[in-house]
Amino acid sequence: MLKKNIETFLGCDREYDEAKIVLFGAPFDSTTSYRPGTRFASRTMRAESYGLETFSPYLDLDLEDAYVFDGGDLELPFGSVENALKDIEDFTRQIVNDGKIPLMIGGEHLVTLGSVRAVAEKYDDLHIIHFDAHADLRDDYLGAKLSHATVLHRVWDIVGDNKIYQFGIRSGERAEFAWGKEHVQTRRFDFVGLEDVVEKLKGKPVYFTVDLDVLDAAVFPGTGTPEAGGVSFDELRRAMNLVANKCNVVGCDMVELSPPYDQSGISTATALKLLREYLLALDYNINNK
Amino acid sequence: MLKKNIETFLGCDREYDEAKIVLFGAPFDSTTSYRPGTRFASRTMRAESYGLETFSPYLDLDLEDAYVFDGGDLELPFGSVENALKDIEDFTRQIVNDGKIPLMIGGEHLVTLGSVRAVAEKYDDLHIIHFDAHADLRDDYLGAKLSHATVLHRVWDIVGDNKIYQFGIRSGERAEFAWGKEHVQTRRFDFVGLEDVVEKLKGKPVYFTVDLDVLDAAVFPGTGTPEAGGVSFDELRRAMNLVANKCNVVGCDMVELSPPYDQSGISTATALKLLREYLLALDYNINNK
Amino acid sequence: MLKKNIETFLGCDREYDEAKIVLFGAPFDSTTSYRPGTRFASRTMRAESYGLETFSPYLDLDLEDAYVFDGGDLELPFGSVENALKDIEDFTRQIVNDGKIPLMIGGEHLVTLGSVRAVAEKYDDLHIIHFDAHADLRDDYLGAKLSHATVLHRVWDIVGDNKIYQFGIRSGERAEFAWGKEHVQTRRFDFVGLEDVVEKLKGKPVYFTVDLDVLDAAVFPGTGTPEAGGVSFDELRRAMNLVANKCNVVGCDMVELSPPYDQSGISTATALKLLREYLLALDYNINNK
Amino acid sequence: MLKKNIETFLGCDREYDEAKIVLFGAPFDSTTSYRPGTRFASRTMRAESYGLETFSPYLDLDLEDAYVFDGGDLELPFGSVENALKDIEDFTRQIVNDGKIPLMIGGEHLVTLGSVRAVAEKYDDLHIIHFDAHADLRDDYLGAKLSHATVLHRVWDIVGDNKIYQFGIRSGERAEFAWGKEHVQTRRFDFVGLEDVVEKLKGKPVYFTVDLDVLDAAVFPGTGTPEAGGVSFDELRRAMNLVANKCNVVGCDMVELSPPYDQSGISTATALKLLREYLLALDYNINNK
Amino acid sequence: MLKKNIETFLGCDREYDEAKIVLFGAPFDSTTSYRPGTRFASRTMRAESYGLETFSPYLDLDLEDAYVFDGGDLELPFGSVENALKDIEDFTRQIVNDGKIPLMIGGEHLVTLGSVRAVAEKYDDLHIIHFDAHADLRDDYLGAKLSHATVLHRVWDIVGDNKIYQFGIRSGERAEFAWGKEHVQTRRFDFVGLEDVVEKLKGKPVYFTVDLDVLDAAVFPGTGTPEAGGVSFDELRRAMNLVANKCNVVGCDMVELSPPYDQSGISTATALKLLREYLLALDYNINNK
Amino acid sequence: MLKKNIETFLGCDREYDEAKIVLFGAPFDSTTSYRPGTRFASRTMRAESYGLETFSPYLDLDLEDAYVFDGGDLELPFGSVENALKDIEDFTRQIVNDGKIPLMIGGEHLVTLGSVRAVAEKYDDLHIIHFDAHADLRDDYLGAKLSHATVLHRVWDIVGDNKIYQFGIRSGERAEFAWGKEHVQTRRFDFVGLEDVVEKLKGKPVYFTVDLDVLDAAVFPGTGTPEAGGVSFDELRRAMNLVANKCNVVGCDMVELSPPYDQSGISTATALKLLREYLLALDYNINNK
Repeated sequence: MLKKNIETFLGCDREYDEAKIVLFGAPFDSTTSYRPGTRFASRTMRAESYGLETFSPYLDLDLEDAYVFDGGDLELPFGSVENALKDIEDFTRQIVNDGKIPLMIGGEHLVTLGSVRAVAEKYDDLHIIHFDAHADLRDDYLGAKLSHATVLHRVWDIVGDNKIYQFGIRSGERAEFAWGKEHVQTRRFDFVGLEDVVEKLKGKPVYFTVDLDVLDAAVFPGTGTPEAGGVSFDELRRAMNLVANKCNVVGCDMVELSPPYDQSGISTATALKLLREYLLALDYNINNK
Repeated sequence: MLKKNIETFLGCDREYDEAKIVLFGAPFDSTTSYRPGTRFASRTMRAESYGLETFSPYLDLDLEDAYVFDGGDLELPFGSVENALKDIEDFTRQIVNDGKIPLMIGGEHLVTLGSVRAVAEKYDDLHIIHFDAHADLRDDYLGAKLSHATVLHRVWDIVGDNKIYQFGIRSGERAEFAWGKEHVQTRRFDFVGLEDVVEKLKGKPVYFTVDLDVLDAAVFPGTGTPEAGGVSFDELRRAMNLVANKCNVVGCDMVELSPPYDQSGISTATALKLLREYLLALDYNINNK
Repeated sequence: MLKKNIETFLGCDREYDEAKIVLFGAPFDSTTSYRPGTRFASRTMRAESYGLETFSPYLDLDLEDAYVFDGGDLELPFGSVENALKDIEDFTRQIVNDGKIPLMIGGEHLVTLGSVRAVAEKYDDLHIIHFDAHADLRDDYLGAKLSHATVLHRVWDIVGDNKIYQFGIRSGERAEFAWGKEHVQTRRFDFVGLEDVVEKLKGKPVYFTVDLDVLDAAVFPGTGTPEAGGVSFDELRRAMNLVANKCNVVGCDMVELSPPYDQSGISTATALKLLREYLLALDYNINNK
Repeated sequence: MLKKNIETFLGCDREYDEAKIVLFGAPFDSTTSYRPGTRFASRTMRAESYGLETFSPYLDLDLEDAYVFDGGDLELPFGSVENALKDIEDFTRQIVNDGKIPLMIGGEHLVTLGSVRAVAEKYDDLHIIHFDAHADLRDDYLGAKLSHATVLHRVWDIVGDNKIYQFGIRSGERAEFAWGKEHVQTRRFDFVGLEDVVEKLKGKPVYFTVDLDVLDAAVFPGTGTPEAGGVSFDELRRAMNLVANKCNVVGCDMVELSPPYDQSGISTATALKLLREYLLALDYNINNK
Repeated sequence: MLKKNIETFLGCDREYDEAKIVLFGAPFDSTTSYRPGTRFASRTMRAESYGLETFSPYLDLDLEDAYVFDGGDLELPFGSVENALKDIEDFTRQIVNDGKIPLMIGGEHLVTLGSVRAVAEKYDDLHIIHFDAHADLRDDYLGAKLSHATVLHRVWDIVGDNKIYQFGIRSGERAEFAWGKEHVQTRRFDFVGLEDVVEKLKGKPVYFTVDLDVLDAAVFPGTGTPEAGGVSFDELRRAMNLVANKCNVVGCDMVELSPPYDQSGISTATALKLLREYLLALDYNINNK
Repeated sequence: MLKKNIETFLGCDREYDEAKIVLFGAPFDSTTSYRPGTRFASRTMRAESYGLETFSPYLDLDLEDAYVFDGGDLELPFGSVENALKDIEDFTRQIVNDGKIPLMIGGEHLVTLGSVRAVAEKYDDLHIIHFDAHADLRDDYLGAKLSHATVLHRVWDIVGDNKIYQFGIRSGERAEFAWGKEHVQTRRFDFVGLEDVVEKLKGKPVYFTVDLDVLDAAVFPGTGTPEAGGVSFDELRRAMNLVANKCNVVGCDMVELSPPYDQSGISTATALKLLREYLLALDYNINNK
């Protein structure tokens, strides 16, 4: 008898019970102010998975051996920001309560807030490592408190001063950089200093959020607000590997892939490769520590 | 001394004081559930205006003679649905209170609600003529009361039974068609019966909302949810002309052009030509009644 | 406990056991001579399903009530034509042997041959109704016997003279039209005569193959070889409805959607709507005869 | 020994000596005011030729039997309007002086002027049949006398009053329509009256210029200024066939295909099919009169 | 009372009187020999401005504080090269005569000639700093003296030997490189030697022309003739900053962005960021020297 | 008398007799498993040739002086893998038997097998230098022995152990890397060690195959399976130059450009520039050794 069609991210075919990492999609982009479309990221990544090998020539590891479950996409109400965040929070809570690590695929960056709420509830003294082109530190944006442009400020509302470490930042308004100087640690343009941060946070619970627009616009055109002057694929791959290897990651996400602006498909392919490398490193770290 | 750069819709260069019709853009698409992008409609239409003549060979009239002011685009907060509707309502109220006819360019269909709120406040016994591929009559959509898919239900909350006349409808869920049978008049697929409706509403205040996806998908691919089996350009042009000529239109809008899905530019060009023909007919009607 | 992500065509959520119609994808386009890409049709249609309602305003029926199972996509070896056809044949055989009707989504038109082989094995006196822009009657194409351009000739090898009824044909080489006159019934450009054919075949087993390029190029640009001068969406919808209603369809397919050439998405949306209408009519016919 | 690569339009493989019709490309678009790109038309049409059959199921004729030579593309100096027109004129003169019929593929519509200059030099009492969405009758355009928007006025400078017959016109400024009433015969929107014109011109030398934007924008998006409300493929095919069959065509062109705006390729495919049908009809007429 | 819609480049909202730098667009591309489309650069850049912050994290300066006026776009006659250059020259003359610095946004590179004519009229001993992938030193191109491929030769006609300094050049015909050796200083591939040139020209009036195709094709695909092997965003940003900081720039331009070839939008975004950084550096230099 | 239209790769206008290098296209992509389209590479490269200069500023050499013949494209039967390889083999044999060097433009990578068969027949002790992102060392792929993914394994069947040198490899399945360790020399990610290999192979016959996806995805998006983390244009240009200069190249190819995924055109332009540089170096080496 025939079975129904199952679609998962590349090689992530474990059952929920045995998995240590749980992937899921949060297709939401209602507060995007420039070019919407990140809602299509997770399903495009799944559909394009078959173009990538499960084996990493960087790490000599294979996703077929990793313990990753793909929970599919949440069905989120466009335009109802608080409700969408609530759904994300509830879903994430279940995962962390089952002792697993959530890895959410956005969606716009605001979805991070839903996930952090659930993770911070479980883990005291949560620290944030944040890779991004944009500071996202506004207190409000066009009158709205909940926005992709305010999300790290909202995260700061939860975790407080000196818990957020930003890297790669190269865009923001004057006021957010000024505010940021008082409350978070911001490295502009690149990853200099990441090794020290990773060292310093050893053992502490870390939520790791990667806005893929930290990549250079030429490398990653398929995003809402592409920014020239960003990091290369290899710089990001190594930086993500460092966090996966050395930190106690208890929750994480990868956001802002926008397939409608990725006509050639290289952004989706790049996101998938980064996801593979990151999953392999994280899985290896979990199983060998 | 040089002057700042002014951009308006095609030939709509009157000052506010002398204008009888006031165009403005409502770039909002946060509740769009399928393909976002209508936020770009109004500025793309302005930018592409110079590709169209101001003269109509259908009507032998010229927009250079018409009394239309272009008020630019509202700056709406993405993700804050109620606030965005409030801004639209306030802007529309000013126009109707100044004795002018608002013609809003969406944006997704939900923006109609903001405009109707202001118009219905001023005009008792307001009737709605609605051209669309979709019934938009749901009471809620994924839990949200305010959505592009519920907008005509929300308009019904204001105007009540037997005031809404729909044409061209060819998509919806079973339940909305069932509900619609009790509360509104729905003509599926085409404009049959429009002449009777127009005759019946003679003299009564009418809000006229045109969702451009009433057009066939081949004619108008650049929209959020293109639907095969729609009306032709000429059928829509004539139907809009009929409403402009025979009804007492006190407010109107044209919504759901989505430039990111209009790679060849024909949807934008078609929307602009429909706008020209409609403006000319409406302006002629105002000045000759 | 969370479940794995299941993806099906629009509302086709029945289990295999209870289903009467079995959908599956045959992603193969290795013999395409002009523009390849039909391999992406079935998964693109699944991904875009959520943009369409399950309810038909044409038929007042809903896919949620229909008995359709989606078996996913076959994994076919590109470049190995005979092997790919064998896989299709085997899969189809299982379906017909279980007393169900296979509905295959191509892929290029050659996939029809695999399916017809299995269906003809089960049903004697099989007739073919064929909608297409192209005659596909060559005996070989650039030296190859198995090709999208020879597929109906290969089908004739199986079913013999006067069993194939073609409609909408508007492209071919001189020699195939000449050959066709002796062996098949070909109606050029439109569906005139379809009612007679349907009447004549009453009760006989029919395999129904729809090459979507029978549609006009403006309506359906997303195909390998778009041809101007084709039928409209509504003409095709009605013709497919006629076959589904009046014939004893024992196998069928819908081929040649090529998403890489469907930038605006209207071809995929149109294919999905035709699929919904056809499934509803076929399901209704099965359950009410 | 291997031969160099020869590329011609579809099946147009006769040597110059034996040919009766001479095709050539005039890749020029320097005066295009809206969207440039028609310079790519002729080479894109050649490259895409292999997607079309040489046999016509409309006429039961095959291009392999026709006497058509393809002279390749002129190398025209962009930005030097007078020089480009001179090159076109010289090339056309050679063809008409050799007793053959030139069929030029534009480029923008201004290229017609170069060709008409040479043809009018040879044929007294030249009449013009003109299919177009745009009147192209301005006397100057932004100060320039030579422009795609003035080309028929420049042609009128040569042939004089009552020699130009326009069909399908649906765009222009008020002044050109007014001027046109005095000097040319203009049919708006469709081909009504073409049969009478063709009858009236029987035996007289005719230059036939087809601006492909006479087609509806949905059918032919790939053009500089697409206009909704145009004719269908079949209407144009039949109208061109009528001229080819009944008129004494001594020169002709087909202009304004713009491949950069033809992402799906349907406009190029449609232009090629119209070219095939027209060549077959013209060739048949020449050889059978 | 409502005001008309004003559109300016990002944050360039000063009145003409108080401005020290005057931006304007020169939408002209009639001599482009490869892929036209630069005519759309200035209006696309204005439309996309809202996607960029006014604050620079490189310079810690904000455009809201700068003295820049945006004069809109010139309306130039396509196909009339001399007239278009005349319009540019006249407009530039007004700006320099008012003691302001013109910053023209092309259009193709030929527009530089119009601007240089006006600037050279006012400033004796004018030097040219030229960033480009192409030498642009031909004396004529396909018989035309005025062309994007001859523009620096035409500028040399005005300023004479040893006044032109080229950087980043990686394309040209053999003859132009040979000619260039005698008359201008050409640095191939990169900016090595720029610091010396800047030092040497201290205090002398400099016209600075940046053809954006000096950038690598991956970084800047949206241009008429993309060339692999170019400089990175950061190399160009720093080189432009050096010129703005150290030279006495009396006129400048940025040319050859071609939006139709910038499907992902990264070229426009990159051009805007370079413009922001350059404006801030130039404005700072003017106000602090 | 007019001549037929000849189209060749950029400046490759020698007759066959005098040529030392023979270019030809092998438009075949039937075994492509991810995104087909490389069949369009050779004709797109010819069509786009006119956008590139024949002169190299890197080498100070000009293609007008080189001895290169362009033999056009083979007409290959899609879907008939063995037949297509046979046609390639026969064509290549003729070239090598005439004492010339074949330079084949793919198509997918499998075409290399046809060419290597002919070259290996003529040259004993043939070595392979292979630039690629993918190892292509599978023994079979989805059951097929002949596939783009198995091509180097098939080449190994011919040349044997320790004859194949791979560079830039960054994708493959675990098993192929394991197999490769025993049979070929694989350098991952870059060209380190190429100088040693070139030195070691001095004088020996070398077949040089370049899969252009060795380039970084940002530099070369237009390919079937773009891979992040690849080499830059300049790294590849220098590596290809090294092989052309120092090796005894007796056959070569450049494969996997896929124009349908090269919307901006930069991949085609980059392929053409690499071809120019490589042809110039190879031609120079031949004539000066």
